[in-house]
Amino acid sequence: MCELSVYARKAKDASFIMATLSTEQKNNALKVIMNKLKNSSKEIFDANAIDVKNAEEANLPTPLLHRLKFNEDKLATVCEGIEGMIGLCDPVGKIQLHTSLDDGLELYKISSPIGVIGVIFESRPDALVQIASLCLKSGNAVFLKGGSEAAATNRVLADVIYFAGLEAGLPEGWLHLLTTRADVSEMLKLNECIDLIIPRGSNSFVKYIMDNTSISVLGHSDGVCHLYIDDQCDEDMAIKLAIDSKTQSVSVCNAVETILVSSKLKDSFLARLVKALQDAGVKIYGDDEVSKLFDLEKCEEWHHEYLDMKVAIKLVSSVDEAISHINMFGSKHTDSICTSSETRANKFTIGVDSGNVYVNCSTRFSDGFRYGFGAEVGVSTSKLHARGPVGLEGLVTYKYKLVGNGALVGDYCSHKKSFNFVKHDIKD
Amino acid sequence: MCELSVYARKAKDASFIMATLSTEQKNNALKVIMNKLKNSSKEIFDANAIDVKNAEEANLPTPLLHRLKFNEDKLATVCEGIEGMIGLCDPVGKIQLHTSLDDGLELYKISSPIGVIGVIFESRPDALVQIASLCLKSGNAVFLKGGSEAAATNRVLADVIYFAGLEAGLPEGWLHLLTTRADVSEMLKLNECIDLIIPRGSNSFVKYIMDNTSISVLGHSDGVCHLYIDDQCDEDMAIKLAIDSKTQSVSVCNAVETILVSSKLKDSFLARLVKALQDAGVKIYGDDEVSKLFDLEKCEEWHHEYLDMKVAIKLVSSVDEAISHINMFGSKHTDSICTSSETRANKFTIGVDSGNVYVNCSTRFSDGFRYGFGAEVGVSTSKLHARGPVGLEGLVTYKYKLVGNGALVGDYCSHKKSFNFVKHDIKD
Repeated sequence: MCELSVYARKAKDASFIMATLSTEQKNNALKVIMNKLKNSSKEIFDANAIDVKNAEEANLPTPLLHRLKFNEDKLATVCEGIEGMIGLCDPVGKIQLHTSLDDGLELYKISSPIGVIGVIFESRPDALVQIASLCLKSGNAVFLKGGSEAAATNRVLADVIYFAGLEAGLPEGWLHLLTTRADVSEMLKLNECIDLIIPRGSNSFVKYIMDNTSISVLGHSDGVCHLYIDDQCDEDMAIKLAIDSKTQSVSVCNAVETILVSSKLKDSFLARLVKALQDAGVKIYGDDEVSKLFDLEKCEEWHHEYLDMKVAIKLVSSVDEAISHINMFGSKHTDSICTSSETRANKFTIGVDSGNVYVNCSTRFSDGFRYGFGAEVGVSTSKLHARGPVGLEGLVTYKYKLVGNGALVGDYCSHKKSFNFVKHDIKD
Repeated sequence: MCELSVYARKAKDASFIMATLSTEQKNNALKVIMNKLKNSSKEIFDANAIDVKNAEEANLPTPLLHRLKFNEDKLATVCEGIEGMIGLCDPVGKIQLHTSLDDGLELYKISSPIGVIGVIFESRPDALVQIASLCLKSGNAVFLKGGSEAAATNRVLADVIYFAGLEAGLPEGWLHLLTTRADVSEMLKLNECIDLIIPRGSNSFVKYIMDNTSISVLGHSDGVCHLYIDDQCDEDMAIKLAIDSKTQSVSVCNAVETILVSSKLKDSFLARLVKALQDAGVKIYGDDEVSKLFDLEKCEEWHHEYLDMKVAIKLVSSVDEAISHINMFGSKHTDSICTSSETRANKFTIGVDSGNVYVNCSTRFSDGFRYGFGAEVGVSTSKLHARGPVGLEGLVTYKYKLVGNGALVGDYCSHKKSFNFVKHDIKD
C-alpha cells in the first residue's frame, strides 16, 4: 500500500467523524484556524517570499506572479473569508423534503456531507484557505493539491490549518496536502476513499482528469461565454454589456469570447459595436461577412477562449441560430442575451444548455460572491450534481431518513395497511 | 463516424428540443404512447412469446422467466404507470431559489433536463416503458439497452413508443434502442453527446461501466443492507423487522444481508432471533461467537449480497461499532437500526453513510413507489447527484437564470452600485 492510500484511508475515517460534528464545533474550528493563521503571518510570508523569488527567477508572467503573492492584504482577506464562513448557515442536516408515508412513518430527505473531496487548484495560495474552510464547514475531509509555484506557501498554510483543526477537535487526517503530480495520478485511483474530485483548470486538464478516474468529477474548466445581441434591443445597453463582458476583466472564465449579433443589425448597429470594442482596445475576429465588412481577421475556431482583449463576432439570423451556435460551440458556462422581447428572452434561457443563462446582464456576474453564496470552490461546467458557482450547497449530498415504529413492508403488500403520502411544507 | 455516434448526435439535438417542451406537450405524448401500446398488444405479446420460448429453451431460472413475461397484466400495469406519470408534477422549470441580487437584478435557480441519458437495465421489458416515460416527462432524450433475453419484446416496445412520440410531436431521435454489447462499449465513449449513464446491475457491472467511461455514472448496484438491533429495543419489533427485511422478498437489493446484534443481547434475545429466522426458513451464517453458540456456518465475507433465504449475524459492542461495520462493509444502500433510544437512533442515522438510513423500519421500504415518487429508474448507490430511489427529480439538473436591465459588473467593482442579496421564499 502506497503512502497516499494510507492518508486516503485516514481521510475516509475522518470524514465519518466530520459528518457528525455540530455547527458549533465546526465554527469553533474555523475560529481557531483563523487565529492561528494571523499568528503565523511571519512564517507564511517567509515561505511566500521563497515561492515569489523562484517564480521571478523563472520569469513567470506578471498576472501569475500577482496571484502567487500572499501578503498582509491577502491574509486579511482570507481571514475575513473565514469570518464570513462562520456566519453562513450550516449546509448539513437541512431537511429538504418531509413526507408522512403513513401515520407514524416519516420520511425525511436530509442534506449530508459528501465524504472526502479532492481539489486540484491553481497557484493562488488564498484558494487553499478558502477551499479548506468550505470543506470543513460542509463536514467533508479534503485532499488539496495546489500549483507547484506556490509549494512553500501551501505547505505552511496547510500545516497551520491542519494542526489548528486538530487542536479544535477535528479528527486526525481531516486535511492532507498533496505535493507532486504523482500524488495526483495516485489519487485518481483511490475510488474507495475519495468521493469527489474537483479539478480547476483548462478544458484539456479537466478532460484528462475525467478520462483517468472512475471517481465522480465536478469539472471547472474554461469558459467560452457568449453575448447574443437581438435586433429588438436597447442598443446603448448592448454596447455597455459587450464592453463590460469583454473588458471588465479579461483573464477570467466568465469574460465573453464570442458576440453573436442579429443579422438584421448588420447595416446599422454592427458598425457602432465594432467601433466601441476597438476604441476600448479589443481586437475583433469576424465571421466571413463581418471580417469583410470591417476588414478584420477571420475567426478560425469558434470554441476558443481568448482570455485576452480579443473577441469574435458572428452574425446569426435569429435567436434560434444563436441558441444552436452556443449549444454547439460554448462550454456550458455563462451565456447572455440582450433583448427587449420577453418571448425571445425566455426562448434563450430555456434553450441554452449552460449553467448560467442571462437576460440583459454582463456575463461577468457568474461567481459565488456575486450570487450571494459567500464563497465558492469554483464555477462548475459539469451538468450533474452542481452547476454554476459552487458554494457550500454544492459540497453536500443528501440521504433519506425513515422513522417508523416497527413498520413492515409485508403489511403494505398484503393491504393490511396503505400509504397516504402527506407532504409537509419545509421551513428554511 | 460509426452508426451509434450518428444516433447520439441526433439524440443530443433532440434533447435541446425536449428541454423546451411544455408540460401539456409532454403529457399529450405520454397519452398517445399509452394508447399506441394498448393498440399494439398483439404485436407486443407475439414478440414476447419468442423471447419466452428462447428463454425456456435456454433453461432460464423461473424468477427470471417470470420477470421476462409481458402479458395483459403487465401491459395494464405499464399503462397505469404512464397514466400516473401524466398526473405527476413536471420536474422541469421549478424555481429552486430566488434572490434579488440588487434592485431589478433577479437570480433564479431553475430545474432543467439533463440532456441525453443512457440507461442499461435487466431483462424486464416493463422497465423499458417506465424508463422511457420517466425520461420523456423529465424532458430528456434517452438511449436504452435492455437485457438480451428480452430483445424481441424490447424492439417492439421501443418502436411503438418512439413512433408514437414522433406522432405526438417529439423530435426525431428522442429515443434510441441499443441492441448489442458493442453498442454499450461504443456508448461509453460518446461523452460529447451522452450526459449521464445509469447502469442497473451487479456491483462488478456498475464498476466496469464506471471504469470505462468519462461520462457521469449514476450507479444502481447491489445492496448489502444491514439491520442493527440495539440492546435498548422492543424485542418483538426487532424480530418482526428482521423477518420482514429478510424474507418479504429475497431477490431484491433492499433485503437485509447482515444483522448486527448488540453483544449485550448475546445470552437472551439472540437465541430467539436465531430461532425465528430458522423457523422462517432462513439459513444463518455467524461470526466466530455466534456460529459457535448455535452451531452455524461461519460467515467468510461481510460484503456479500445473498439474494436468497440466507443472512449473516454478527455481534457488535455498541452503536459505534455497528456504524463502523456498515460504513466498511455495506454498499451505501439501506441500513436500519432497531432501538428505543433516540440518541442512538440519531447517532446511527447521522453516522451511517448510506442513501437510506432507517429507525425502527424494515429495510424493504427503499423504493420510489413507497417513497411517494410514483416511479423510479432505480435506487442509486452513488453518492452524488441523486441517492436512494431516483424518480423524476433525479433526472433533472438546474441552471441559474439572471435577469437584469443592463447590469454591469464594472458598476459593482467600482462601488457605484452594491449587492443587497434579498432571498425570496419559494412556493411549491
